[in-house]
Formats: sequence, structure tokens, C-alpha cells
Amino acid sequence: MKIDLLTAENFQEFGDVIEANSARTHYLINGGTTTRFHDLADVQVTPHNEESVRSGISIFRGDARVFPLSISMLERHPLGSQAFFPLNQRPYLVVVAPELDQERPDIENIKVFWASPSQGVNYAQGTWHHPLIALDAVSDFLVVDRIGSGPNCDEYEIDKSLVCRIEQVDFACFPS
Amino acid sequence: MKIDLLTAENFQEFGDVIEANSARTHYLINGGTTTRFHDLADVQVTPHNEESVRSGISIFRGDARVFPLSISMLERHPLGSQAFFPLNQRPYLVVVAPELDQERPDIENIKVFWASPSQGVNYAQGTWHHPLIALDAVSDFLVVDRIGSGPNCDEYEIDKSLVCRIEQVDFACFPS
Repeated sequence: MKIDLLTAENFQEFGDVIEANSARTHYLINGGTTTRFHDLADVQVTPHNEESVRSGISIFRGDARVFPLSISMLERHPLGSQAFFPLNQRPYLVVVAPELDQERPDIENIKVFWASPSQGVNYAQGTWHHPLIALDAVSDFLVVDRIGSGPNCDEYEIDKSLVCRIEQVDFACFPS
Repeated sequence: MKIDLLTAENFQEFGDVIEANSARTHYLINGGTTTRFHDLADVQVTPHNEESVRSGISIFRGDARVFPLSISMLERHPLGSQAFFPLNQRPYLVVVAPELDQERPDIENIKVFWASPSQGVNYAQGTWHHPLIALDAVSDFLVVDRIGSGPNCDEYEIDKSLVCRIEQVDFACFPS
């Protein structure tokens, strides 16, 4: 698998890259002591059966993945976006796929991105993605996602003939 | 000013402490590779004049404050909560006050908390607080707050006779 460096541009069809650099707007606040890099992610929460929903904040603590890593499933959240921001100054991997049709991801066009310690991602509502891939050590991520009832997780098992492998990742820097 | 170590308990009347330890619920997800510390903050967004509002994600980059630091103003957001999580593994200070009446904070009961690098805070809607106080070096914080129109920031200038000073803070560890 080819691994790309994550940018707002190459991630655009899957959601937002959350980093100061990607801000469309930033301005000084707090008497000039703070810069606000404003509104970096489109947080989406869709109601289900008119029940109340809201966005919530959670922490995900992910084990360091072991390589080679097989990408054998993807998931999506049809009722809301899901944002991750790394809290331990470690990079991580982001695996996404476009839609093939309403039910299935396009496995032949899976993309793998290397996210730096200062980059978060926000998967747009319904975007197929692999669960959290932490590198090197157990790592915490701040997560902003939909809290509410309703079926908000679809899983897709990848056909064995299409399972792909990420051979190895250098956690210290982007593999150039 | 006395500085207290931040805990979910002593911060309860002002909002939420966002940390894995404070989770009421946590459970394994992603085939057992990840622990989800679930729903750590009450994210509040109140509409104004029936216009649409949502929660957004921003990054605040705060200068390191210089001590002694005078606490000469407080602010509050009447239409939404505001969450901060430190991204650079550095502690920071949290300054809050209860309400004296509908218009004013109770300055004589200001509280100062030392937040560790693994603790975020979520100021509950309408809670009087001091703007971001980063320590030691320029520091980034992930912020989750209300995005929308309407008057969502009240500022209160503290009477000169009541301005308090934080003399010094050891940024490396909680001052015991």
C-alpha cells in the first residue's frame, strides 16, 4: 500500500483535516494573547426518529497496531461525523475509501494517509474508514462524535481476495 | 491566590473535566484494540432567534502568560459551552467564578485550578471564566464550542480593589 502524507486537499472528499494550517479563518482574541484558528471541522449530527441527538466529546485509547497490518474491514457512521485528534504527540494512520455504491466501499480505491502529531481528522458523515490505527505505543485521541440513539455504525468485511496489507510504518517520521 | 489541582469533583459546578479517569462509562471497541472513554463533556449549543447553530472544532494557540498575572476580567458564553483540551503536553491554568447575580461573577469566590497535560475542561454554558492561560511556551488547545450568530460573549471588568494576582506557577508539576 502506498502511504500519502495527509493534507486538507487530498482528504477533502473524506472530511476535514483539523490543523491550524488548514484554517480558512484565524484571528486574535483574548486581548491579543491567543490566536483562534476557527471552525476546522464540519461536525454533523443527524437525528433519528426525532429523538434528540448532540455532539459529545470522548477519549479513545488505542493500542499500537502491529505490522504488517491487514485492512480486512471498514466502517462508517451514517448519522454523524467523527473527529479524532491525537493527544500524545505521535503520528497515526488514516485509512479511508470512497463509496462504490450505497452499500459498499470502493476497496480498490482505498487510501492510506500518515497523519502527523499535529493533525486531526474529521470523517464526514457516512465516510468509510478503518478503525483507529495508533502507532508505536498506546495512544489517546480526543474524539468528537454523535451521541444519540439509532443505527450509526455499518461494518463492511472486505473480500479475502481484496484484503490489503500495510507492511511497515516508520512512526518517527513520514516515510518519504 | 490558592491554586488547586483540578478534579471532576471540585470543578463540577463550573462544567466538566475531560479526562479518561473521569469517564462514567468506558468500553472496548474496534475488536478490542481501543477503549472508548465515553461522553466526557456536556456540549451545549443554544439557538438564537431560531437561527441554526452547531458545535464546531477550532484550535486556540495561546501565548505563555507572564507572572505575576493579574486577573482583571472574566468572560462567559451565555449561549453555549466551551471545551479546551491541551495538545502540547503542557499544563495550564483554569480560573472560574460562580455567579453573584444574573449579571456579575462572584469575584470573592474566584477559583484557580492547575490542569495537567492530560486534562481538558468544558466550561458549562454561562460559566464565568478567565481567557486561556497557557504556561511556559506557546501552546495549542483543541476547542469545541458553539458556532452561530447571536451575542455569545459577556465580559466583566473586575473592580480594581478586587483584582487578584497569581504570583508564580511551576509549569513542570502541580505546586504542592
